[in-house]
Amino acid sequence: MIAVLRIGHRIHRDKRITTHVALVARAFSADKIYIDTLDKKIEENIKSTCERFGKGFEIKTGVNPKKIIKDWDGIIIHLTMYGEKLEKIIDKIDGKGDILIIIGAEKVPPWIYQESDYNISIGNQPHSEVAALAIFLDRITKGKWINKKFNGKMQIIPTNSGKKVVSKDK
Amino acid sequence: MIAVLRIGHRIHRDKRITTHVALVARAFSADKIYIDTLDKKIEENIKSTCERFGKGFEIKTGVNPKKIIKDWDGIIIHLTMYGEKLEKIIDKIDGKGDILIIIGAEKVPPWIYQESDYNISIGNQPHSEVAALAIFLDRITKGKWINKKFNGKMQIIPTNSGKKVVSKDK
Repeated sequence: MIAVLRIGHRIHRDKRITTHVALVARAFSADKIYIDTLDKKIEENIKSTCERFGKGFEIKTGVNPKKIIKDWDGIIIHLTMYGEKLEKIIDKIDGKGDILIIIGAEKVPPWIYQESDYNISIGNQPHSEVAALAIFLDRITKGKWINKKFNGKMQIIPTNSGKKVVSKDK
Repeated sequence: MIAVLRIGHRIHRDKRITTHVALVARAFSADKIYIDTLDKKIEENIKSTCERFGKGFEIKTGVNPKKIIKDWDGIIIHLTMYGEKLEKIIDKIDGKGDILIIIGAEKVPPWIYQESDYNISIGNQPHSEVAALAIFLDRITKGKWINKKFNGKMQIIPTNSGKKVVSKDK
């Protein structure tokens, strides 16, 4: 199981970035996202996406990060621009075991660095936790996220011209 | 040269997502970003990042997308969840020629689909234009973005514990 823990989520300021983090977690084949701040709106959004495009992804907001981390039985990875280079560490990580990926918004408290097995950077330049999560999941799944079957009511048919969407409700 | 064209940018609503798009463009080795809506704030933010972490990336806001596209002498790629699968198309793209990557916010007008040489999806699930851009640049550079030298005043030294930053000003 791969879970993402989003910490430092501020409802107003981070709503769109955290939504993107959650959608990337789902699309790139994580199983679950925990968000520290209670945010019913974001829960509804993600559940609605699952309802339309395929289930099998969970979201839980208003969690206690310390408890999640303490109870986690698997590897804990914190994605940060300050961390060790991904290329150096990726082979050490058991992609088949359970992985908790911590994604911070703005300032991350020092204890997160300490409690994580690995602090990993996706390039040591400032960019985006959304991109960092996508690249990390791409690498850890060896690109296999792309083959995940979602079996949703709505299905997009890839095309080079315009939009083709099949809806099973019709 | 790789340039990104962000269209449909709404100053208030998209400021953080578009900032992440611009930072990802820079970190993943694009050369330039054009943003349709004039937004001095975002220009200042990105220029300030370049000032601190390394130059060689340009930003221009308040551009006319039709003119940029008409004048572009190279391949034009539109990233969209409705597009053809990246894996099917990536080998056809000349990674050495100039590439313009179009990234929409919310609704993209039909003419963008028509004017693009390729409409490409990074998975056909809803996720994030930030992630889509990162994965596309990762694939088109064959992962070489990670080796880009930025030579900024501020340099992050990768570490598994905490933060190490070297500043050349000191």
